[in-house]
Amino acid sequence: MPTESEMFEKGFQNRKAVLGAAHVETSWENADDFNRPAQRLVTEYCWGEVWGDTTLPFRTRSLINLAMLTAMNQHHELAVHVKGALNNGVTPQEIQAVLLQAMVYCGAPAALAAFRTTSIAIKEWHAQQDAGRLPESK
Amino acid sequence: MPTESEMFEKGFQNRKAVLGAAHVETSWENADDFNRPAQRLVTEYCWGEVWGDTTLPFRTRSLINLAMLTAMNQHHELAVHVKGALNNGVTPQEIQAVLLQAMVYCGAPAALAAFRTTSIAIKEWHAQQDAGRLPESK
Amino acid sequence: MPTESEMFEKGFQNRKAVLGAAHVETSWENADDFNRPAQRLVTEYCWGEVWGDTTLPFRTRSLINLAMLTAMNQHHELAVHVKGALNNGVTPQEIQAVLLQAMVYCGAPAALAAFRTTSIAIKEWHAQQDAGRLPESK
Amino acid sequence: MPTESEMFEKGFQNRKAVLGAAHVETSWENADDFNRPAQRLVTEYCWGEVWGDTTLPFRTRSLINLAMLTAMNQHHELAVHVKGALNNGVTPQEIQAVLLQAMVYCGAPAALAAFRTTSIAIKEWHAQQDAGRLPESK
Amino acid sequence: MPTESEMFEKGFQNRKAVLGAAHVETSWENADDFNRPAQRLVTEYCWGEVWGDTTLPFRTRSLINLAMLTAMNQHHELAVHVKGALNNGVTPQEIQAVLLQAMVYCGAPAALAAFRTTSIAIKEWHAQQDAGRLPESK
Amino acid sequence: MPTESEMFEKGFQNRKAVLGAAHVETSWENADDFNRPAQRLVTEYCWGEVWGDTTLPFRTRSLINLAMLTAMNQHHELAVHVKGALNNGVTPQEIQAVLLQAMVYCGAPAALAAFRTTSIAIKEWHAQQDAGRLPESK
Repeated sequence: MPTESEMFEKGFQNRKAVLGAAHVETSWENADDFNRPAQRLVTEYCWGEVWGDTTLPFRTRSLINLAMLTAMNQHHELAVHVKGALNNGVTPQEIQAVLLQAMVYCGAPAALAAFRTTSIAIKEWHAQQDAGRLPESK
Repeated sequence: MPTESEMFEKGFQNRKAVLGAAHVETSWENADDFNRPAQRLVTEYCWGEVWGDTTLPFRTRSLINLAMLTAMNQHHELAVHVKGALNNGVTPQEIQAVLLQAMVYCGAPAALAAFRTTSIAIKEWHAQQDAGRLPESK
Repeated sequence: MPTESEMFEKGFQNRKAVLGAAHVETSWENADDFNRPAQRLVTEYCWGEVWGDTTLPFRTRSLINLAMLTAMNQHHELAVHVKGALNNGVTPQEIQAVLLQAMVYCGAPAALAAFRTTSIAIKEWHAQQDAGRLPESK
Repeated sequence: MPTESEMFEKGFQNRKAVLGAAHVETSWENADDFNRPAQRLVTEYCWGEVWGDTTLPFRTRSLINLAMLTAMNQHHELAVHVKGALNNGVTPQEIQAVLLQAMVYCGAPAALAAFRTTSIAIKEWHAQQDAGRLPESK
Repeated sequence: MPTESEMFEKGFQNRKAVLGAAHVETSWENADDFNRPAQRLVTEYCWGEVWGDTTLPFRTRSLINLAMLTAMNQHHELAVHVKGALNNGVTPQEIQAVLLQAMVYCGAPAALAAFRTTSIAIKEWHAQQDAGRLPESK
Repeated sequence: MPTESEMFEKGFQNRKAVLGAAHVETSWENADDFNRPAQRLVTEYCWGEVWGDTTLPFRTRSLINLAMLTAMNQHHELAVHVKGALNNGVTPQEIQAVLLQAMVYCGAPAALAAFRTTSIAIKEWHAQQDAGRLPESK
């Protein structure tokens, strides 16, 4: 992995801390020439500049992201950040509370769509956790 | 003021706690037949159901609202909730951090517009605080 | 089913009247702890407060919903409300007219996406109607 | 006024019927080279193709437009179409009902913003009606 | 195919020039009564009025469309117009540059979603090109 | 002006080249502690990373920005970028063509709003050009 800049390094660490090291390393390695500049910009700009600013803790940034992604109907990223939120120690009850807040501010259809995406993502996250806890031996 | 329901009462208290009692009472009294049902629904559902749910503290709900209102370009409500956030103990640095997070997730134009609205609202809030601290005597 | 409130009861009746009793009862029974509060809020707030207000007939509320859901690109709810509109006596020609109106006001891509969702939903509704009319005997 | 096409003529008549002949003729005459092609396209496609399709009556098209314009936060056009709706025989109570429906589907901030725009537009429409009913003589 | 109007004819030619004659003719023939008026309006209005205006070359109109479709999250049309852009001589590098510009102006989630759609569309376009170049003989 | 980074420097030069040196230097100097980090991020990422990528010429980037800003209803930035587009050699006829393209893809209300903002911005730009050409002497 080429070291692009200090900000990229900082972002890459934050991204791995929130989304899981294996997942992030694989997706960076799998990026092709068409997608790599976008991956680099996101790593620097989202994960370095923003998540690297300690004014707000990761838990709070997760809640804010879930709210904005619901408001903008960005369901791929919502699923990614639901798992990130759980990694950051956000509880399913807190995620539910964010989505209910979104229901009255962003409208019922946007919130119901987010509930569908989020239910699945929470179940996937639990399955991944359970798989991770399985004994390696047979 | 007619007591509409328990949920309305709960919402009315929360609304006054966040936005200031005098402001909320005046705007309820000034509502006409055309606007009153909307004011009632907002009081019950936003301020009663959502803000009345203690899963998230007021400070966190404020940060989430600033993020969603920026994402949806709702500048009238953004100004209202910037002042509410400051009343809830959110610092200008934390508001700034939310808007910078919005910049990378919602785009630069949405965030820059929110910075303009927010700068003015923070100054107005400080002016109102200073006015409130003036000695009553002459 | 726990009786939550009068408004919930009113909403639950309206929801069944528009979307079909069997469908609504099943989805309420299948709601889990994560989704139930959202289902309750939607039932009270959308189906009780709004659909329970007789200022506009159900047919008109259906047309308005199709327009708003197209404008907001909410395709899951659009499919649900296309079927509800047909249950409310809206004709496919009227649905088409709403979507063509949306084309010039919301842009061609939003309307074309709504046409795709709606075409499928109308066909599904007809298939369900046909299935419901089949003789039980053999 | 150059006759552009049959569809333009049909649209121009519909536009005048809904928004008022004097208003529409003045704004067409005042269009400059930069704006005229947009005015022509809107007259042909919105007012000719869409409003010229009799599947839905003008009253219903007005309600649908108010809903879509609220959903999209298009406040200039919302004010224009509130006045058009009143010209088409829609009552303020029906407009209120559309905006309350928008509140739960599009979110409270979008609906509250629409209530502000609409309140002003209804008052302006009444003032114009009163002015129009004044005796010409002195 | 019924000749609807001169503008329709002009639009139909432009649509075929950008999206491929076989594709456009098939989709027009397959349109049913429900979809045909929308297809006609799009052909006249998008492809006749707009693409028929020579102020901007097709290549530039393609870049503008990719940007707007990304901003509005219209992924079905985005995939269609990525292929149209390649047909118009736009390079993958230029498409990438548009999406990176969208990243900072529309936000990272909108741009990342567009990158996913676009990557697939570019691969499909290349596969279609390769298939078209295959020798007919065996 | 503190030199923040090479990318900031590159962005600051591009920003001045498009929007005018005096305007950009004044607004950077006037930024306060609340707004400065946003100004820095915009300068680095929008004007450095994106506008600094030579895959697309400035003229084309201007057209793309006008389209995206119209699609997102970002009128403050739209006015700024209309003037930038004229500085980059885009003609009013080309701007008109972009807005007419936006009319069919983003809907008539979004485009009509953009026409109002753009008309004013073009007149202001011409007034500034005329003022700049006035003889200093009297």
